[in-house]
Amino acid sequence: MLEDKNKERTSLEKLGEFGLIDHLTQHFTIKHPSTIKGVGDDAAVLDFKDKKVVLSTDLLVEGVHFDLSYMPLKHLGYKSVMVNLSDIYAMNAKATQITVSLAVSNRFPLEALEEFYAGIQLACETYGVDMIGGDTTSSKTGMLISVTALGEASKESIAYRSGAKENDLLVVTGDLGGAYMGLQVLEREKEVFKVNPNNQPDLEPYSYIVERQLKPEARKDIVELLAKLKVKPTSMIDISDGLSSEILHLCKNSGVGCALYENKIPLDPTVISTCEEFKMDGTMIALSGGEDYELLFTIDQADFPKIKGNPHLTVIGHMTDKSQGANLVTRAETLIPLKAQGWNSFQSQ
Amino acid sequence: MLEDKNKERTSLEKLGEFGLIDHLTQHFTIKHPSTIKGVGDDAAVLDFKDKKVVLSTDLLVEGVHFDLSYMPLKHLGYKSVMVNLSDIYAMNAKATQITVSLAVSNRFPLEALEEFYAGIQLACETYGVDMIGGDTTSSKTGMLISVTALGEASKESIAYRSGAKENDLLVVTGDLGGAYMGLQVLEREKEVFKVNPNNQPDLEPYSYIVERQLKPEARKDIVELLAKLKVKPTSMIDISDGLSSEILHLCKNSGVGCALYENKIPLDPTVISTCEEFKMDGTMIALSGGEDYELLFTIDQADFPKIKGNPHLTVIGHMTDKSQGANLVTRAETLIPLKAQGWNSFQSQ
Repeated sequence: MLEDKNKERTSLEKLGEFGLIDHLTQHFTIKHPSTIKGVGDDAAVLDFKDKKVVLSTDLLVEGVHFDLSYMPLKHLGYKSVMVNLSDIYAMNAKATQITVSLAVSNRFPLEALEEFYAGIQLACETYGVDMIGGDTTSSKTGMLISVTALGEASKESIAYRSGAKENDLLVVTGDLGGAYMGLQVLEREKEVFKVNPNNQPDLEPYSYIVERQLKPEARKDIVELLAKLKVKPTSMIDISDGLSSEILHLCKNSGVGCALYENKIPLDPTVISTCEEFKMDGTMIALSGGEDYELLFTIDQADFPKIKGNPHLTVIGHMTDKSQGANLVTRAETLIPLKAQGWNSFQSQ
Repeated sequence: MLEDKNKERTSLEKLGEFGLIDHLTQHFTIKHPSTIKGVGDDAAVLDFKDKKVVLSTDLLVEGVHFDLSYMPLKHLGYKSVMVNLSDIYAMNAKATQITVSLAVSNRFPLEALEEFYAGIQLACETYGVDMIGGDTTSSKTGMLISVTALGEASKESIAYRSGAKENDLLVVTGDLGGAYMGLQVLEREKEVFKVNPNNQPDLEPYSYIVERQLKPEARKDIVELLAKLKVKPTSMIDISDGLSSEILHLCKNSGVGCALYENKIPLDPTVISTCEEFKMDGTMIALSGGEDYELLFTIDQADFPKIKGNPHLTVIGHMTDKSQGANLVTRAETLIPLKAQGWNSFQSQ
């Protein structure tokens, strides 16, 4: 997992800013008919014709959002794109273009940036999006990444956070808590490595959750699945901060309450066993963990037969009148008000 | 110019990320019909109908692109927007939306961010653009800004860097070198202030060039002027790195050469006098200084009568066959090949 520090190094000064951009973007090709002009002018030029455009942007800071001591640069590039595409899919839209801006200090050689862009490129190819621009500059300390993603959708298909109605079913994709537990394992191995650098970590038993942390996948497949099933979510959001925080966003924006059933929250067996090992509570981790990049959405009850039994989708609750608040219904059938305990970057310092 | 350090301070931790975004964006209003949904969902939603979309993004890093010891935060917010809008105007397009992402360390209180966003808001109002999203997070050290700007244009009106033809006239807006000389003055005053903090700088004689550095304006008016004059530039770029570097971009992208006449380069009297004071060469400053955010474009010779005598526009040369290269024709009528001596952030450390 740790990088070989003895690789050949090419300093960034040699290339200069324009040389660097040309070098790093040379293998990116344009695939979308909506991309008229990508990298190489003052601005990119796009043509969305009669489609609506959706746009999202994220800033990732070294030491706050990622730790290069266990995050390989290629994975970091891939994950930076996933974080943004996830927001586009959370609008029930198709992702089409991204821009990638990067600030790095001189301690990064060209080969490191090539690794990072290899991850960006893999994400673009896998998810069928075009890289159309960005900016590359130096920073005094550390690495900083800004990604902006664009997507397209018809007016009818866009799912906002604000459309949930009383009695709508609350549905989540995949399973939760994996990315957070993967982070716990990686943090523990980092401490072990500090004490004894010769100790090779055995991450095999944790491979699912470590991959959830290091190489998350955005749920493009769900947008396609919902279209195929002819289900239009009444509201939708992606789970970046933890289930609790995201449910509260839907409730606030839609003016409704929610009953979330603890016994319905999908947890992978590896999450459950690792929670036991770390003496953590699986429900708590799912509610507050973050970084799972699954989708959370509401559907009209009439659509339930269309999604019933689908292995990607789990009904975890339903929306209620606003006056009832947003509550977790525990296994013991007591009500606990949901709190936004998600990740807050300003408290993390 | 220096900020009062004794103002009331509200820590960012108190608000949290969502509270902070809500607080900072509460006074922004939506003005464009193409903005369907701005801040407050997973992504913004836009509708450009039959127009082409242009998009540009820039990353600004404290200590590399700006120095908070003489850059008031409101000006910094304003300038961050200008840098991006300039790229949109350089496509001969109309700027319509921006996103603003910000990473700051805990040393910045809420009031500092409010100042920054007041500058963003002033820029949005003055230039008629909507703020539709962004991201706010913490950084370990210093401040980092990422702005993305969107614009719209008809297919016919977009000006790329690649359309210049032999014999086209090379035209520049406004005057050059002011922003760079303003920076020299500010850097000098900063050194004086370090030695004697009670020494109040008299910047009055330098007000034009200091304003060019601290509060540049993007040339929205030129895009409107060219439309009114019915002049379609054959190629266009904005001057962010210095005239020399930008001419070379046009030449490279268009496959032509260029003859630039030294005696035609527009310099403000303040730039000339400050250059004398600093024992610098005005032509050199215009060629390599950067940050003027003027527009540089080429027009067909047949369009010359339409722009002749316009106080905003100066013909500074013409395009030649590629084999002749890109040259400065000096006052002594000797040819000097142009070099890209523009600002390079990787050499600046």
